[in-house]
Amino acid sequence: MTVSSADAASTERDLTAPVRIARDLIRCPSVTPEEGGALAFLAELLEGAGFEVHRVTFQTPGTPDVENLFARYGRGHPHVAFAGHTDVVPPGEETSWTHAPFSGEIADGVLYGRGAVDMKGGVAAFAAAAIDFIADAGETFPGAISFLITGDEEGPAVNGTVRLMEWCRARGERFDACIVGEPTNPQTLGDAIKVGRRGSLSGTLTVKGKQGHVAYPHLAENPVPGLLRLCAALDGLHLDDGNERFQPSNLEIVGIDTGNPAFNVIPEKVGARFNVRFNDTWTRESLARHIEAAIREAAGNTVGYELVFREDGSDSFLTNDTALIGALSAAVAAETGRQPELSTGGGTSDARFIKNYCPVVEFGLVGQTMHQIDERVALADLETLAAIYRRFLSDYFKAG
Amino acid sequence: MTVSSADAASTERDLTAPVRIARDLIRCPSVTPEEGGALAFLAELLEGAGFEVHRVTFQTPGTPDVENLFARYGRGHPHVAFAGHTDVVPPGEETSWTHAPFSGEIADGVLYGRGAVDMKGGVAAFAAAAIDFIADAGETFPGAISFLITGDEEGPAVNGTVRLMEWCRARGERFDACIVGEPTNPQTLGDAIKVGRRGSLSGTLTVKGKQGHVAYPHLAENPVPGLLRLCAALDGLHLDDGNERFQPSNLEIVGIDTGNPAFNVIPEKVGARFNVRFNDTWTRESLARHIEAAIREAAGNTVGYELVFREDGSDSFLTNDTALIGALSAAVAAETGRQPELSTGGGTSDARFIKNYCPVVEFGLVGQTMHQIDERVALADLETLAAIYRRFLSDYFKAG
Repeated sequence: MTVSSADAASTERDLTAPVRIARDLIRCPSVTPEEGGALAFLAELLEGAGFEVHRVTFQTPGTPDVENLFARYGRGHPHVAFAGHTDVVPPGEETSWTHAPFSGEIADGVLYGRGAVDMKGGVAAFAAAAIDFIADAGETFPGAISFLITGDEEGPAVNGTVRLMEWCRARGERFDACIVGEPTNPQTLGDAIKVGRRGSLSGTLTVKGKQGHVAYPHLAENPVPGLLRLCAALDGLHLDDGNERFQPSNLEIVGIDTGNPAFNVIPEKVGARFNVRFNDTWTRESLARHIEAAIREAAGNTVGYELVFREDGSDSFLTNDTALIGALSAAVAAETGRQPELSTGGGTSDARFIKNYCPVVEFGLVGQTMHQIDERVALADLETLAAIYRRFLSDYFKAG
Repeated sequence: MTVSSADAASTERDLTAPVRIARDLIRCPSVTPEEGGALAFLAELLEGAGFEVHRVTFQTPGTPDVENLFARYGRGHPHVAFAGHTDVVPPGEETSWTHAPFSGEIADGVLYGRGAVDMKGGVAAFAAAAIDFIADAGETFPGAISFLITGDEEGPAVNGTVRLMEWCRARGERFDACIVGEPTNPQTLGDAIKVGRRGSLSGTLTVKGKQGHVAYPHLAENPVPGLLRLCAALDGLHLDDGNERFQPSNLEIVGIDTGNPAFNVIPEKVGARFNVRFNDTWTRESLARHIEAAIREAAGNTVGYELVFREDGSDSFLTNDTALIGALSAAVAAETGRQPELSTGGGTSDARFIKNYCPVVEFGLVGQTMHQIDERVALADLETLAAIYRRFLSDYFKAG
């Protein structure tokens, strides 16, 4: 009658390091902003491998306190950082999951759970790779490896990577390269390394008129026709055709709202909100000027408007570090047999907060199930990713 | 020490009937849907003058119960009805009033109070005129005069005039002419008689797309550009140039709403709401077809949309009864020295519920202070309006 526990013990013994670490991280219910035991687990693991570990909490009035982790092994250079997060988005309806979202169950060679690919799996793969590398490198390792782990990537992102990078700078930490472990592969492990990101600029365009009764339009001034004209100009704006590094810049009008529930009232004002994802043809400033000029021309002397750009945008960036990109591409190719695309597509990521400190690229698991019910990762992918990171560390430090 | 009360008594004696009735009605706080004593006062006044009075309450689930009044004098024809309401809009900030809104105070020849012009003043003027006319006409009066008074004109208008007209029809009441006593004069008593009204048609135009992240527009389908195109077609739609009876029809887009608060999400759908005030070039049906065709053409094969017209619209109407209009115009001219414009402008009114029963026109006080703080009416206007109604009754029944 001990067959099943003997099986379980044998299965436990058979699990590879990246799978075991990923499973244990998934079992920590670290929904943003809860630490959930994930950073404590990671701290113990890395301390056991010889890392100097700092757990730092950042506070900002009006946002939740967030725990973060910085861990460093080695005092020299080059200094490679791995950036990621252990917080996860909420699991949604738990009963809809095939396996409970924080149970870390394995079935048919697949590990299930919230964070499996975004991105406890990535953290686990790098931890396993780094620990293995350190064990091999021995006492004479001349470089340094660090973990920059936040608990606020899925939240307001105020008390996370931004603050952690400032904290590192204040301590005198200098990085030579950084890999962000977000799930960057659209379909298959090895598809793509993100070597840059487009910028993002949001704005609000408001046209004011004069409220009044719809039966007396001469006593009112309907702002809608004016806004329609300005929106047509926005929507027709040609930004660029893209280049060999980036896809074309793109503007989307994401909302128009009058907030007027009545059918017999001409509204006082109407506002449109838009967002631009833009390439390195533009800076936020040059793009804002371009949009402003187009709106001004469309408005002429007849439409009074207000155009306000939000402060939370970011410029595009492109990493040109050939040592970093070359070593990582070669490691991907060697372990997967695929030549990864060097991509700059998709949304923004925490890499935008790191790019001013050191060259940064992004490579992790396959993103298909992220933020979904039954988020999951093949054990083989976890092991291959760990092997990629492991090979990268060897090659990068050999070259350095 | 009795001087002031003697003065008050002498003032009271000096007040003319329309002023006294208007003041007493204003003192009833009949904010919709409250009866506030106004219909009870009117019932007693008209019963005293020989009217047969019915007070009828209508109920509709989901709306307040509303009291209404029907009063008739005489059993023959022609049968002239006066339509109006004793309910009033709320007074707003009472301390902002020079005289308390339900005190009915008179100062410098002006009567202050909520409802002074909209439209307790009009009701009072017609009551005074009718009572005086009946007293002169004597026992042999061959026609009939009725009051159709609702307590729900400023509210949902569900349990008011619509129901009262049905109630009259069920009783076998037939009317030959009706005057609605709403404040129709823009500047000066005698400016305008409303002999018709434009129709009203409202609709909602919705474009559906596919929600998605703004960084991946190829995986989403932004409905905003399609809606912009359809709205441009709506806004550019030429309806008509008006005619000698009506001003041009006019369409206003009164709202566009995506209800999407995020800057990084392409919305699933966006809707525009519009209202048309249209003349007798159109019916609701022909206008809806015209709008539908324009939208269909603008949409082509590329924009999927849904166009829904609301059921609460009304067609335009124009009253051609020369006996009614002629007698009323002549009475206005005789009492004011002004030739009233025969107007069809402005919004809808309860006349749209009466037009299918008998010829209907609208004439009352000057509307400038309606719905405002310090709503008020010159005593001279009340007296002149009563004289106009009195002269109209004489001339109309003489001709009939």
